[in-house]
Amino acid sequence: MARGKHETFGADESGRALERMVAFSDGVFAIAMTLLVLSLTVPDLTGSADAVDRELWKALKDQWPELLSYAISFAVIGRYWLIHHRLFRLVRRADPPLLVWNLVLLGLIALVPFPTELLGRYGDTTTAIVAYGATMASVGLASFGMTQHIYRADLLDPQVSDDYKAHSRMRGLIVPVGFALGIPVAFVDPAAAPWTWWISIVAISVASHLRYGSAIRHPYETS
Amino acid sequence: MARGKHETFGADESGRALERMVAFSDGVFAIAMTLLVLSLTVPDLTGSADAVDRELWKALKDQWPELLSYAISFAVIGRYWLIHHRLFRLVRRADPPLLVWNLVLLGLIALVPFPTELLGRYGDTTTAIVAYGATMASVGLASFGMTQHIYRADLLDPQVSDDYKAHSRMRGLIVPVGFALGIPVAFVDPAAAPWTWWISIVAISVASHLRYGSAIRHPYETS
Amino acid sequence: MARGKHETFGADESGRALERMVAFSDGVFAIAMTLLVLSLTVPDLTGSADAVDRELWKALKDQWPELLSYAISFAVIGRYWLIHHRLFRLVRRADPPLLVWNLVLLGLIALVPFPTELLGRYGDTTTAIVAYGATMASVGLASFGMTQHIYRADLLDPQVSDDYKAHSRMRGLIVPVGFALGIPVAFVDPAAAPWTWWISIVAISVASHLRYGSAIRHPYETS
Amino acid sequence: MARGKHETFGADESGRALERMVAFSDGVFAIAMTLLVLSLTVPDLTGSADAVDRELWKALKDQWPELLSYAISFAVIGRYWLIHHRLFRLVRRADPPLLVWNLVLLGLIALVPFPTELLGRYGDTTTAIVAYGATMASVGLASFGMTQHIYRADLLDPQVSDDYKAHSRMRGLIVPVGFALGIPVAFVDPAAAPWTWWISIVAISVASHLRYGSAIRHPYETS
Repeated sequence: MARGKHETFGADESGRALERMVAFSDGVFAIAMTLLVLSLTVPDLTGSADAVDRELWKALKDQWPELLSYAISFAVIGRYWLIHHRLFRLVRRADPPLLVWNLVLLGLIALVPFPTELLGRYGDTTTAIVAYGATMASVGLASFGMTQHIYRADLLDPQVSDDYKAHSRMRGLIVPVGFALGIPVAFVDPAAAPWTWWISIVAISVASHLRYGSAIRHPYETS
Repeated sequence: MARGKHETFGADESGRALERMVAFSDGVFAIAMTLLVLSLTVPDLTGSADAVDRELWKALKDQWPELLSYAISFAVIGRYWLIHHRLFRLVRRADPPLLVWNLVLLGLIALVPFPTELLGRYGDTTTAIVAYGATMASVGLASFGMTQHIYRADLLDPQVSDDYKAHSRMRGLIVPVGFALGIPVAFVDPAAAPWTWWISIVAISVASHLRYGSAIRHPYETS
Repeated sequence: MARGKHETFGADESGRALERMVAFSDGVFAIAMTLLVLSLTVPDLTGSADAVDRELWKALKDQWPELLSYAISFAVIGRYWLIHHRLFRLVRRADPPLLVWNLVLLGLIALVPFPTELLGRYGDTTTAIVAYGATMASVGLASFGMTQHIYRADLLDPQVSDDYKAHSRMRGLIVPVGFALGIPVAFVDPAAAPWTWWISIVAISVASHLRYGSAIRHPYETS
Repeated sequence: MARGKHETFGADESGRALERMVAFSDGVFAIAMTLLVLSLTVPDLTGSADAVDRELWKALKDQWPELLSYAISFAVIGRYWLIHHRLFRLVRRADPPLLVWNLVLLGLIALVPFPTELLGRYGDTTTAIVAYGATMASVGLASFGMTQHIYRADLLDPQVSDDYKAHSRMRGLIVPVGFALGIPVAFVDPAAAPWTWWISIVAISVASHLRYGSAIRHPYETS
């Protein structure tokens, strides 16, 4: 009954409150992903149909970095959504700090279209690469922080094993660590930073899989 | 059976109608929060990669007021969403005026990206500060008005205590009062108005906590 | 078993299919309403803080028609959402034409931000008034057509009385008729058209209320 | 228990996980459809009210290709949504590749507003027609690939007949094949490509109906 302990919602209501929070989060994820398309701009062209056609073809070819940024951000937000999805299937209760952690995470997710446009248009500059990598790493850290809170405040389904928690915590760090490693690299050579992202992410994924992959199962996964 | 009394929906259907209204509201909250990112604009830069990099770095540094406005608006809408969320977990019936109150509230929430962009770009002017503060205070008043209607029309779960209602009503006024107090201040000194917001909000929160905090619990909170 | 008759979904699945369609529709309504804010544009101003402040104040004052258009469109889409909400609480089955009608309705709802911006910026021209009125009337006609289909294809809860249907059909025509009446008026005097909208809508609402209001109740309303 | 086989979620949790994925997908479909309106731009006009009125009328008349593109894209995304809707009513389990297929499909759906704007503004160029047709065909292929995975990984309700699967697979190819056929045509004559779309789609639909239409029923359709 001590005030210092955070309140959690009663069992009956907790389900509905959690569902609403999850649905709200899904909304923000879905909107942020769909708004990414606004970073692709249609050029203003005039002239004969033939001239416009040639110009447009050239403009679209020059836009491949923007399309690539779109695809990367869609995939990364999608990946964070999957982590969120997987995590919340195991959460049984919500407490006030969880709501705050979740809002921080969503605030960073909703921000992603901005660095995505920066990366698409100025992807050869250190500034854009650092801004993008820092945002993506921050999303991952917020997601990791939320996971840690859920574990510590004992909001998870009691069936979840400690091994699963350890694995899942590790897995949540792969993407943010990859993006964070790209930041110092971008100061030396912006073009090398994206390679750092992919190589780190793949390397850590493989290492994680070797270490945990064959042993750990999602508590609600059957095989 | 008198016509003057507002109709309420039957018990069976009421649950579904409420759920749909709540889901719809969550949609508007989530979209408004995610659209805030559109107030951040990527500058148009040309020149050598190095020159663009330096310019972009400078442009991003100069955009910190826009990022701050983004964060404030995200947090304030998030806070109003939490209030909405908490309130509607206790609502058991809907009547037509509740739908109207809710639409007014949502209309103001959906408007927030506009004053947010004003604040981000012209945050040193009285006009932008007043427009922002007035919008945010209006959202709070609409939320307060809706709460009052819910209490008076007896739409709440009967388990909710009068003490909880009094506390909750008070808590709902903290943010709008803070923003309203900033309006006269902005006419004297625009730079002082945001401080008025934060100081009022923190001061009233602390006062409210001291007065009610240790005694009142959400009816569905366990501790 | 004749192929000519439209298939309807089985009872068990019908509930879930309907719920998904309704949730999807709510999404479109909510997004269209929230995108309205993008028609409000923040002016580009430069100069001393004082000069910018004066200019911004003037610019905002000159934007009242855009704010008004925002408010009208939010209210009208909100009204159509309420009609949709009220109608679908009584629908028990979906058939393929209902999905098509609903998509047509949503396509028109999603279009509303465009004539809203036209009206806000060029509200003193016949063109903008006609475009706005025609869009709003079309939304209403699509909503009316969908209602008719629901009645004829017998998709409603059998508890719904014929009196309620007649009333509800009438009520669904109030807004489109009001907007349609404004179209010829706009060709004579654009400034008179909005008055035609409001006067027709209020007059028909009052007439409808006098004719049906005291007798008809929503089948799931208690009083 | 072999690692090579993909895990599927347990029966109890599977329902909720599927529902959340479906709700998330509906969000992306709904937002992409509603963002289409942003491809319609309000012209900047100045001068006397009369001159503006004439200019605006002319501008809107010249915008019919943009309105047409809006309508086509809304209808095509709507059609893909119906396919998604119909398919997922029969899915009983989710596995990790399904989540990935679904994200790829959603990433392409969310991209549609960009080629829609291209088509609306430069619909007489080969480039815009090819970009539009290729995007739309890709959406269809992703949808087809997802359907194939669902069939092969045995995620469907066991009541679904093989005849239904064959029909449904065929039906899912109609739209992408139509758009793909337009691509070579666009290189010869851009104006002929849209006719290729409509004629192919109608022709294949009729052929499919003649071949399968009278025999196959949705497992949850009654007639």
